Amino acid sequence: MSTAKQKIYEIIFEADTPSGKFFDVSLLVVIILSVALVMLESVPGIRQNHQELLHGMEWGITIIFTIEYLLRIAIVDKPFRYIFSFYGIIDLLSVLPTYIGLVVVGSHSLVVIRILRLLRIFRILKLTRYTLAGRSLARAIWASRAKISVFIYFVIILVIIVGTIMYLVEGPEHGFSSIPRGIYWAIVTLTTVGYGDISPETPMGQFLASIVMIMGYAIIAVPTGIVTAEIINPTIEKNTQVCPQCLHHSHDDDAAFCKKCGAPINQ
Amino acid sequence: MSTAKQKIYEIIFEADTPSGKFFDVSLLVVIILSVALVMLESVPGIRQNHQELLHGMEWGITIIFTIEYLLRIAIVDKPFRYIFSFYGIIDLLSVLPTYIGLVVVGSHSLVVIRILRLLRIFRILKLTRYTLAGRSLARAIWASRAKISVFIYFVIILVIIVGTIMYLVEGPEHGFSSIPRGIYWAIVTLTTVGYGDISPETPMGQFLASIVMIMGYAIIAVPTGIVTAEIINPTIEKNTQVCPQCLHHSHDDDAAFCKKCGAPINQ
Amino acid sequence: MSTAKQKIYEIIFEADTPSGKFFDVSLLVVIILSVALVMLESVPGIRQNHQELLHGMEWGITIIFTIEYLLRIAIVDKPFRYIFSFYGIIDLLSVLPTYIGLVVVGSHSLVVIRILRLLRIFRILKLTRYTLAGRSLARAIWASRAKISVFIYFVIILVIIVGTIMYLVEGPEHGFSSIPRGIYWAIVTLTTVGYGDISPETPMGQFLASIVMIMGYAIIAVPTGIVTAEIINPTIEKNTQVCPQCLHHSHDDDAAFCKKCGAPINQ
Amino acid sequence: MSTAKQKIYEIIFEADTPSGKFFDVSLLVVIILSVALVMLESVPGIRQNHQELLHGMEWGITIIFTIEYLLRIAIVDKPFRYIFSFYGIIDLLSVLPTYIGLVVVGSHSLVVIRILRLLRIFRILKLTRYTLAGRSLARAIWASRAKISVFIYFVIILVIIVGTIMYLVEGPEHGFSSIPRGIYWAIVTLTTVGYGDISPETPMGQFLASIVMIMGYAIIAVPTGIVTAEIINPTIEKNTQVCPQCLHHSHDDDAAFCKKCGAPINQ
Repeated sequence: MSTAKQKIYEIIFEADTPSGKFFDVSLLVVIILSVALVMLESVPGIRQNHQELLHGMEWGITIIFTIEYLLRIAIVDKPFRYIFSFYGIIDLLSVLPTYIGLVVVGSHSLVVIRILRLLRIFRILKLTRYTLAGRSLARAIWASRAKISVFIYFVIILVIIVGTIMYLVEGPEHGFSSIPRGIYWAIVTLTTVGYGDISPETPMGQFLASIVMIMGYAIIAVPTGIVTAEIINPTIEKNTQVCPQCLHHSHDDDAAFCKKCGAPINQ
Repeated sequence: MSTAKQKIYEIIFEADTPSGKFFDVSLLVVIILSVALVMLESVPGIRQNHQELLHGMEWGITIIFTIEYLLRIAIVDKPFRYIFSFYGIIDLLSVLPTYIGLVVVGSHSLVVIRILRLLRIFRILKLTRYTLAGRSLARAIWASRAKISVFIYFVIILVIIVGTIMYLVEGPEHGFSSIPRGIYWAIVTLTTVGYGDISPETPMGQFLASIVMIMGYAIIAVPTGIVTAEIINPTIEKNTQVCPQCLHHSHDDDAAFCKKCGAPINQ
Repeated sequence: MSTAKQKIYEIIFEADTPSGKFFDVSLLVVIILSVALVMLESVPGIRQNHQELLHGMEWGITIIFTIEYLLRIAIVDKPFRYIFSFYGIIDLLSVLPTYIGLVVVGSHSLVVIRILRLLRIFRILKLTRYTLAGRSLARAIWASRAKISVFIYFVIILVIIVGTIMYLVEGPEHGFSSIPRGIYWAIVTLTTVGYGDISPETPMGQFLASIVMIMGYAIIAVPTGIVTAEIINPTIEKNTQVCPQCLHHSHDDDAAFCKKCGAPINQ
Repeated sequence: MSTAKQKIYEIIFEADTPSGKFFDVSLLVVIILSVALVMLESVPGIRQNHQELLHGMEWGITIIFTIEYLLRIAIVDKPFRYIFSFYGIIDLLSVLPTYIGLVVVGSHSLVVIRILRLLRIFRILKLTRYTLAGRSLARAIWASRAKISVFIYFVIILVIIVGTIMYLVEGPEHGFSSIPRGIYWAIVTLTTVGYGDISPETPMGQFLASIVMIMGYAIIAVPTGIVTAEIINPTIEKNTQVCPQCLHHSHDDDAAFCKKCGAPINQ
């Protein structure tokens, strides 16, 4: 790799040098600006008066991002690895919608997906309290994935049954026009969102809904319990010691002897 | 048991052999398909255009399920034990509504109850992380049943009193047309669902509602606390065994030897 | 106390003898029946058709409760202690509204307060898992009272400020007709009830509301954390050992030496 | 400092002497009265009938507060330190809106900010259970700030993407008139507030909304888990100290001697 190439690499891929950090911070500012532009453009009053300006700025930013994307591919050692990496895909999706918008009207709003590029902020905040906090949260959620999947599996089965029963009880004349709509209502209710766009009107429906709500009360406790346990766990979780004699694991931190076979274990 | 019978038994009751696993997975696919059919049939637009097709498919699946159900009874050693087991009852309820639908119009939608058959998925995913997660969640909820029952008992007493007071304060002219409706409102509010189909309109009613909501804020913490404690507990829960040699306690449930001095302890 | 008096005392105040248990269970049934009557009477359709019957039954039950109340006073050793006890007051409030209803129309609905008599169920379920669960929950909530009071104090200050700002931003033309109404909105929003009877309509109001909602997201975690910690605490809380040399307490369960002065402590 | 000056200092800045406590309690009463006045004045019916009276009382209280504020500046040793302290700024903001209200109509409602002066109550309740509870809660929330910030950062990225997708799916004809409005909807939904002022109407929109709600179900668990862990942690949190003699770890923060072997450890 030539020195010039390495210099550019350090600037656009790393955040350790002052110029690299400056590049990353500028990028974050442009991303935020760009997302703000898309939002503003969607507001009817603003769109009508400033369409030209907003349009121009969006194209400007898209061209900057396109150049940056091509530069990243040109500069990196293994281009395909970057292209198919998480950030590589996000970087591509950050420019595509504008080009597609030339053909499909309205689709260019999808450039808001470039807000995901803001996740790079954790690259800049290297090893600080915030990165650690993010990693610890991600770990807790990742460790809970099996329990949360099982929980959501049960919730889906539950809302399908509840939604169907409410469809039969309330019927189309009270807004429960189909089973999918009944299921939508069940989800709105069980998650305690409660828009009120569909709500039970018959006494029987209101009675059943009350039971669902009180059930939801207890059910909402489950994911909370799962995640809380995972956040607290690292403090009290078992260590990785294995008994040298019987290979039993899951010993307490302060165990001096294997609780299965009585052989001394390394502390 | 003849070899053929045992072969069929392995296929339809177990999931260890390739053919047994194939049977179970096919069953899950058919169940999902069947529930999707019922949902689609409930959508007015789809019902009008494809009733014949949907009807035919539902009958096809119901006949497959009926044959499977009869086969299970024929093949199992103790038929009555299967018939009155959890899955036996679900299997029967999965076919009954279609036959009843011949007599009682509309009731066939209840076949969605066959979605409960999806719980068999845990039989296929033998001993994986998901089955363990499911078991651990079920255990936590089961262990909390006394506390959650007591909690719900208090909540019911509370909503009856609150609902009556709001009925007296707001009255029928603001939507609180009866005490049961007031109780329905109290449940909608306390669980933070808040449809808005009934909401207090007088200043006095809004003041009382505010107190109920802030109470609900603190009350919602209770089931969460119960379940969270139960999920965390197994990790830190210790039995009452004491080492006969060094009198150390706080041993794990599966400890055969004292972790402090290595002496054997009674299990 | 004469034997007859003591016999009656055992029946109506205790639940250990078969007749005492029978009395208490009958009482619970009559209470539930009586509350159901009041609810039914509040439903317009039922009231018009069965007023005589419902009226008669309510008076019947009220007279039974009145006799029971007078009997309790007559039979107990220290009548005033009973009269001013929690259950004594509830027992009086359970009959008063019917008599007051003769003078003040509508007030007799307040007899639903007699549902609080259902709390006596814990007297019947002596020392079972449910009574223990109830006591443990009550203990956790009682132990959290200081933290929850402080939390609610802050929430009240917060909703007053938020409610006023929203009143100024949105104004009467968008439903925020006064500061108390703004505060009511703030409580509805912060507790995530969200009726939708009042909701911000200006972009500025919706922006502020979004901040309040995300704050509410974090704030709702606080009471949950408080109660959860209190439920978990007894399991992990320190024992009552005191160092014989320096009188330091709060030692771990497995501590063999005082962590303050190094003197051996009794395990 | 002269004796008279010190006497006044003790009265208005401290709460240890009877007169100091009396001053602080009177102040709290006047603050509550004053906030109640502002609220009452905002109610149309009351404003029209009692404007003169309310106006007079507000000016009276503002003048009392102004004198108190000037007295505090005059009496304190380092006036600038007081002026720019938290309470100094609150004290100023408690009187300014009334004076500004002479020029800018309506702004005087902002005097409700003086409710923040109620936080002084913790000065009066010196070292009681409530002050400790408040401090412990504040500590838990403060210790969670990194995790909660990261969490809110993700939530903001999430609601922007969700809000844009819903804007594209539902469109202005179903109330999603712009991306900011879509984001507002996403926040209302994810926080489970659910006003229902905007709600998805197309089947596709309702399907996406259902996914968002079930995600919100799991997401709401995160801040709760964070705060709960922080409240529980101090009890079970261990430092990294290791006993120099027996290498035992997991000592409490305040341990001076190893709890296992009694050897002194570095604090």
